[in-house]
Amino acid sequence: MKVKAAVMVKPGKMEVREFDRPKLEKGTAIGKILYSGVCGTDKHSYLGESIQYKGTKNEFDIPYPIIPGHENVLVIDEIDEEGSRNLEFDGEILHPGDRVTMCPDVICGKCFFCKNFPSYPWCETLDPEYGCRPSCDVGKHLYGGFAEFIYLVPGTRLYKVPDGLPDQIAALTELMCVTYTLDKAKEFNSFSLEGFNFGDTVVVQGIGPLGLMHVVKARMMGAGKIIVTDISDYKLNLAKEFGADIILNVNETTPEERIEIVMQNTRGLGADVAVECVGKPHVVPEGLAMLRKAGMYIETGTFVECGKTPIDIHEICAKNLRIIGMANHSHNSYRQCMEMMLRSLNNFPWKKFISHVFSLEGAGDALKTSMSEKSMKVLIQPNQGFDHTGFN
Amino acid sequence: MKVKAAVMVKPGKMEVREFDRPKLEKGTAIGKILYSGVCGTDKHSYLGESIQYKGTKNEFDIPYPIIPGHENVLVIDEIDEEGSRNLEFDGEILHPGDRVTMCPDVICGKCFFCKNFPSYPWCETLDPEYGCRPSCDVGKHLYGGFAEFIYLVPGTRLYKVPDGLPDQIAALTELMCVTYTLDKAKEFNSFSLEGFNFGDTVVVQGIGPLGLMHVVKARMMGAGKIIVTDISDYKLNLAKEFGADIILNVNETTPEERIEIVMQNTRGLGADVAVECVGKPHVVPEGLAMLRKAGMYIETGTFVECGKTPIDIHEICAKNLRIIGMANHSHNSYRQCMEMMLRSLNNFPWKKFISHVFSLEGAGDALKTSMSEKSMKVLIQPNQGFDHTGFN
Amino acid sequence: MKVKAAVMVKPGKMEVREFDRPKLEKGTAIGKILYSGVCGTDKHSYLGESIQYKGTKNEFDIPYPIIPGHENVLVIDEIDEEGSRNLEFDGEILHPGDRVTMCPDVICGKCFFCKNFPSYPWCETLDPEYGCRPSCDVGKHLYGGFAEFIYLVPGTRLYKVPDGLPDQIAALTELMCVTYTLDKAKEFNSFSLEGFNFGDTVVVQGIGPLGLMHVVKARMMGAGKIIVTDISDYKLNLAKEFGADIILNVNETTPEERIEIVMQNTRGLGADVAVECVGKPHVVPEGLAMLRKAGMYIETGTFVECGKTPIDIHEICAKNLRIIGMANHSHNSYRQCMEMMLRSLNNFPWKKFISHVFSLEGAGDALKTSMSEKSMKVLIQPNQGFDHTGFN
Amino acid sequence: MKVKAAVMVKPGKMEVREFDRPKLEKGTAIGKILYSGVCGTDKHSYLGESIQYKGTKNEFDIPYPIIPGHENVLVIDEIDEEGSRNLEFDGEILHPGDRVTMCPDVICGKCFFCKNFPSYPWCETLDPEYGCRPSCDVGKHLYGGFAEFIYLVPGTRLYKVPDGLPDQIAALTELMCVTYTLDKAKEFNSFSLEGFNFGDTVVVQGIGPLGLMHVVKARMMGAGKIIVTDISDYKLNLAKEFGADIILNVNETTPEERIEIVMQNTRGLGADVAVECVGKPHVVPEGLAMLRKAGMYIETGTFVECGKTPIDIHEICAKNLRIIGMANHSHNSYRQCMEMMLRSLNNFPWKKFISHVFSLEGAGDALKTSMSEKSMKVLIQPNQGFDHTGFN
Repeated sequence: MKVKAAVMVKPGKMEVREFDRPKLEKGTAIGKILYSGVCGTDKHSYLGESIQYKGTKNEFDIPYPIIPGHENVLVIDEIDEEGSRNLEFDGEILHPGDRVTMCPDVICGKCFFCKNFPSYPWCETLDPEYGCRPSCDVGKHLYGGFAEFIYLVPGTRLYKVPDGLPDQIAALTELMCVTYTLDKAKEFNSFSLEGFNFGDTVVVQGIGPLGLMHVVKARMMGAGKIIVTDISDYKLNLAKEFGADIILNVNETTPEERIEIVMQNTRGLGADVAVECVGKPHVVPEGLAMLRKAGMYIETGTFVECGKTPIDIHEICAKNLRIIGMANHSHNSYRQCMEMMLRSLNNFPWKKFISHVFSLEGAGDALKTSMSEKSMKVLIQPNQGFDHTGFN
Repeated sequence: MKVKAAVMVKPGKMEVREFDRPKLEKGTAIGKILYSGVCGTDKHSYLGESIQYKGTKNEFDIPYPIIPGHENVLVIDEIDEEGSRNLEFDGEILHPGDRVTMCPDVICGKCFFCKNFPSYPWCETLDPEYGCRPSCDVGKHLYGGFAEFIYLVPGTRLYKVPDGLPDQIAALTELMCVTYTLDKAKEFNSFSLEGFNFGDTVVVQGIGPLGLMHVVKARMMGAGKIIVTDISDYKLNLAKEFGADIILNVNETTPEERIEIVMQNTRGLGADVAVECVGKPHVVPEGLAMLRKAGMYIETGTFVECGKTPIDIHEICAKNLRIIGMANHSHNSYRQCMEMMLRSLNNFPWKKFISHVFSLEGAGDALKTSMSEKSMKVLIQPNQGFDHTGFN
Repeated sequence: MKVKAAVMVKPGKMEVREFDRPKLEKGTAIGKILYSGVCGTDKHSYLGESIQYKGTKNEFDIPYPIIPGHENVLVIDEIDEEGSRNLEFDGEILHPGDRVTMCPDVICGKCFFCKNFPSYPWCETLDPEYGCRPSCDVGKHLYGGFAEFIYLVPGTRLYKVPDGLPDQIAALTELMCVTYTLDKAKEFNSFSLEGFNFGDTVVVQGIGPLGLMHVVKARMMGAGKIIVTDISDYKLNLAKEFGADIILNVNETTPEERIEIVMQNTRGLGADVAVECVGKPHVVPEGLAMLRKAGMYIETGTFVECGKTPIDIHEICAKNLRIIGMANHSHNSYRQCMEMMLRSLNNFPWKKFISHVFSLEGAGDALKTSMSEKSMKVLIQPNQGFDHTGFN
Repeated sequence: MKVKAAVMVKPGKMEVREFDRPKLEKGTAIGKILYSGVCGTDKHSYLGESIQYKGTKNEFDIPYPIIPGHENVLVIDEIDEEGSRNLEFDGEILHPGDRVTMCPDVICGKCFFCKNFPSYPWCETLDPEYGCRPSCDVGKHLYGGFAEFIYLVPGTRLYKVPDGLPDQIAALTELMCVTYTLDKAKEFNSFSLEGFNFGDTVVVQGIGPLGLMHVVKARMMGAGKIIVTDISDYKLNLAKEFGADIILNVNETTPEERIEIVMQNTRGLGADVAVECVGKPHVVPEGLAMLRKAGMYIETGTFVECGKTPIDIHEICAKNLRIIGMANHSHNSYRQCMEMMLRSLNNFPWKKFISHVFSLEGAGDALKTSMSEKSMKVLIQPNQGFDHTGFN
C-alpha cells in the first residue's frame, strides 16, 4: 500500500510523493492524519532559515527532503499491543479509531535534562522531531503530518482528544501548549512585582497564530489589558475579537508612539509582561522598552538563527528586566489545553482561528498563504473529507 | 564648626573642601564616618561615565560637584528624638555612639514600587542617593561618605552593627547586600532545573570587590564549583583564597578556551549560574555561552550607560536562558549580612579583602588605586585614627 | 451634626445609635457610605466568637460596642489636603465626590512585617481594623461601615472605583481581594506539580460569599473543574451559575462519597487545590483527603478561634501536602480586582451575588439573614436611596 | 554460592539467614555492600510501626520477613551490559569495582507523578523499596542492605561515589538527600518573607541522624541561628559541634520555656523555619508555636502512621503558617550531596557522625543501639574488613 505525502524537497519547493506504508514494529503505531497545521517552523524551513537550537548540543540543520507538519491531530489506524499501553501520555489504553494529538518531540530519556525534568523538552538529542527530522529519505519515511499517514515510534507522546472538541480545534493543541510561556510568567509572580499577576497588562508582539493563541491564553488566565502589535489590520482585528484591548499597527505608528501608548495605558509604568511572537529579533528592543521595571520579556519567537541584534545591556540592569528564553513547550499540558479549549468553545470565535484548509497537493500554496497578511492558522487536510466532527 | 570632605569637582578631579556642620532637624542625625568604601559607581563617576538608571524614570546624570562614598560605616554623633526612633531599619532605638551601616538609597515611599515592594529600591525618585546626589552645593551638603561627617535625612535606613564585627568589615556590608543577586538565583530553584541549586556551578565574571564578594556569598550559600575570570592574577589568586575553584585569566586565554574549560568542569553541560561583575557589557556574550540550557545570567555590573552590544537573540530562545537584570540590592538584608560576616570571620581571609586605606586627602589616589590590577576594596578613613575595633 | 450607626452592643444585640460627626484632622477624610457588606467576621462577632489572630502579637478580643462593617464602598464627603494627597493607594488625588473602596486594615508601617512586606498585612499592630476595633465608645467613634459616615484616619488605604462598576459590585472588592489565596496557589506552580496550574481542579469547601467569590476567581484564572460543597442547595446552585462544575450537598452525601466523587473526577488522583471557606475547622480533614499528592490546602476560613481539630500528621507527610494559612488579603490588589470585576460584568450573573440589602435599622436582621441558607452577600445601605449607579 | 543477610523476621526479631546468590538478568547488577545505615524506617519496622504512605495509593504494610537497609554504599560486583549503560543516574558507564550509592526507591515511570516529575518519588507504585519491600521470601530475595550482596533491578538508580569520599561518609548520602527539605525551604523565598532566607533562624526538632544532617545542611546553605531540641545531651552536644547555636533539652525545659527562648533569639518574631525530625507527631504544636508569622514548618519525621494530633486550625490561618509535608527525597541530588560532603570533609567533624559499626550478626544490637540516647548514625558492615577508604 502506498502513502501520499507533501514533501519539502528543498527550500521553496514542495511536491507530492508516494511512500510504502511501513510495517508496525514493537511499541509503534500508524496514525491517519485528520489535520496538520502549518507552523512557523515550516515557514522558516520553506524560506531556507533552517538552523535550529544554535549553541546547544542539538543544534541542527533541516535535512531536506522532509515531510513537514508537527501540529497534528490524527486517528489511530493501526497499533501494536505495546504501543497501545505505552504511547498515550496520561496512561490511557489506545485502540484503532481513537483520536489523538501528539507531541512532535521525542526525547531521549537519558540525558541530564530528561533525567531531571522530562516535562519540558530540553533533551539534548530530540529524535525524531516530527515535521523537521529525520529526512523522509531514511527509516520509515513518514515523520511528518503533511501525509495521509504518520509513523509513530516508541517514545512518541500521544494525547487522547476529549469528545466534543472539533478536529480543527484539536489541531491547535500544540500551539496552545506553547503558550506555557504565560504559565511561566505566572510562576514568576512568586516573586514580588514580577511576572504575570491577576489583572496585569500583557503585550504580544506579532499576531500570527502563535501571537493570537497568546491572546486567548492571557485572557483565560486573568490578564487585564492585552496590547498587541502587527503589520496586518486583518490580524489585529482578529486579535480584538479574541480579547485584545488595544491593537497597534506597526506600519502606521512609530516605535516611540507605540511605547508611549503602552505607557499611557499602564499609568506610566510600562507593561508587566511582553511576549515576542514575531519571529524576528529586531523587535526585541521595542519590547524591552515597553516593559516596566522588573517587567518580564518572553523570547519565544526567534527559534531559528537570525544573526545578532544590538541590545543595551545597561537597560537590562537598570530596569531590572527579566528576559526568559523559551524554545519549546511543556509536554505534560496537552490534556489540559484540549480540555480548556473544549470548555471555552463558546467564549472565543474559534472558527475564525482557522483561516484556510488545503489538500496535500495544495501544501505549497498553504505555506505561501500562511505567510500572507490575510491568513491565520492554515491547515493541511491530507485525507480529503476525513473529519470526525465538522465544526458546529 | 567645619566639616572636611573630599569632593569630586568634576570627572577626574578630587579636592578637599570644608562645609558648615548642618544643624539637626526633626527626624535627622549626623554620623561620624569610620570608613567609606570606594565603589564601582565612584569609579564610573570619576571617569565621567555618569548616566545611571537609563530608560527609567529616575535616569539621572551625576550632578558634580559631589561628595562620593555610599558604602559607609559610621558612629551616630548627634541624633534628634524622632530620628532616634525611626532611622534604624529593624526598630532599634539609636543613641549617640551607636555604630551603624546605612543604605545609600532613600526611597520615596509613595510610588508604585515603594507601595508594593519597598524592600528592593525600584523607587522612581530615589533622593538622596548618598554618594551620588544631590550635589554638595545644595541643601545640607554632606550627602556622601568621603567626609568627616554625614547628614542623615528622614527616611534614611540605618542598621546597627553587631558587636564583634570589625569596622572595616562592616564597611563591606552594602557590597554584601548586593550579592542578593545570588539569593535571587536561589529563588529560581523553585523552578525545576533553574537558578542556583545546592552544589551548583557558579561563574563570576570579574573579580573586583563585587566579584570577590560574590565568591564569598556563593560559598556561604552552598555552591559547588566556583569559576572566576579576570585580567589580574592578583585578583584571581585572592578569589582562590576566598573559595573559588578555577581561575581564568582573560589575558592568557581565549573566550573559546574559557567556555571549553567551563564545559569540561560541568560534564559538558555548562554553568548553572553566571554573574556579570565586570561592569562592561562586552563580556555578556561569553557569559551566556558559558551557561547550560535554562541557565541563569545575572546582569548586575553594567549600572552605567555603556552603549549597545550585539546579542544573538536566537541563542536566548534556543538555550532557554534566563537573563536577570539587578541594578540594586535589597534594603532588608543589611542586618543578616552583617551577622553572617561576623559568623564567618574565621572562615575567610577577610583582612585581605581590604587592600588599601586612604585619608580624605588621598581620595584621588584612592580612586586611582581602586582601578588598578593590584587592589581590592579601597577604603577612605576620613577621621584618621578613628576606629572602634581594629582588626584582629 | 449627628451621624447614625448600627452598633453591635454585645454579641447578639444590634441597635442604632447617634454620634457627633467628627472634625477633620490632618491627613484624614470622612466618607459617606454607599454600601457595607456583612462579612463572616461580623457574623462571628455577633455570635460571640470574638478572638482573632490567636497566637500572634495582634491577638485580640472584639471590644464591644463596635460599629461593624469593613467591606465598604463610599463617597468622599470631606477630605483635608494631606489626606487628599496620601490616602489613595495608587497615588490618585482624591476630592469630595470621589467613589472609593477601602482596606479595613491600617498597618503600623514600622514592625518587621511592614518594613519588609507591607503589601500583605502581617503587621503586628493593625489599628484600626475598621469594623472590628476600636470600639465606638472611644476616639472618633465612626470606625465601621454600618453607619452613615465613616472616619478615615491617616494610613487608611483607599482605592478609587473605576467608572462603570456598580456600587453594589464595588462593595464586593475586599471579598475579591481575599481570593488572593488563589493567586498564592498559582505562585506555587513555580514548583513542579504544586499549586494551581492551568486547567487544574479546585475544590471550594463552603459557598458563602467567600466561597462563591473563590469560584469566580478560579474561573477567571483558568481553573479546569471546580467542585464545591455546602449544606444549602440554594448556594450550591448559585455556585453552578457562577461557574462550578460539580456541586455536593454535605447533607445528602457522606464524606467518603464526596472524596470518592473528587477522585472520580480527577482520574483517581485527587484535587490539585482545596480552599476552606466554611469557617469551621472540622471540615479540614475531609479537604485534605480530597487532595492529590503534593496538593495544596488553603486555610482561610477559620479566622476566629475555634478550638482544636484532630489531624493525622503522617498523612501530611505521606501525601506531601502543602497547608497554607492565609488570614488576610493583599492590600495592593484592590484596583486590579475592581478592574477585573468591571471587565467581567457580563461574564457572571453578578446581580445574584447580592441577595439582600438592608437599612441601618435592619442591621440585626441583616446579620441573621446572612447566616441563613437562603442568602448570599447581604449589604447594608446606611443612606437610603444613596446609590450612584443602580445595577443594570 | 550463598549470601548471608540479617533478616527482620517480625517486629523485634532479627536473625541471620542465607540465600542463594541470584543470577544476573538483563539490566541488573549485584552489589557488594560496604556499609548500610540503620535508618528511622528500620527502627519503626522493628517496633512494628509498619504502615507507610497512608492515604495514598502506595500505602503499604511492611511484608515481614524483610532484609532492612536502604542507606547503602556498595561496590559493583557483577553487572550485565545493559545495566552497565543504564543504572547510573548521571549517565556514567558502570563496571565491576565501581563504588556507588543508590536510591532505595524504584519508581514505575508511568504514573501521573513519574510522567510529570520523576525527580521526586511521588510515584504511586514504588517497587522495590529496598530495605522495606518486597519480602525476602519472594523473587530474588536480596532487596536490602543488611546483606553481603544486594540485587539491583532495572530502574534502580545508582550514583558513582567521587574519589576521596570515605565509604562511611558515602553511606550518609541518602540521609543528606533527605535534607532537600531545606532546599524546598529555600525555594520558598521566592515568596516575600517566606521560607529559608540567607541568615535565617532554623529550628530542628530532634537530633537523630536526620536532625543532625539538617544542622549540617542548614549551615552549608547559609543559615543564621540554628536552634535544636532533643532529649539527649549527647546528641545535643554533637549538634553543637556540627554547627547548632542553641541546644534545648526537652527533659529539662517546658515547651513554653523553649518557645520563649526561640522568641528571645529572634527579636520576638519566632523562627523562620522549623523541621520535624523527631518522628512523633506530638511535637508538631510546639514547632508551630515556635514559628513567626508566615513561617514554614516542614513535616518530614512522621513517615509511619501514628494516629491523630490535636491541631489549632485557627492558629494556622491566623499566623499564615506554611506546613509542608515531605515524605521522601529528590532522586537527582545524590551526586551533588556526595560532592558537597567531599568538599566539606574538613568543615565538620564527620567522623563523629558515625557512632557505631556492627556486623550482620550484630544487626539486632545495631537496631537497639540506634534507638539509644547515646548513638548517632549506626552502620552495618556486612562484609567484615571490606572498606575501600578507611577514614582519615
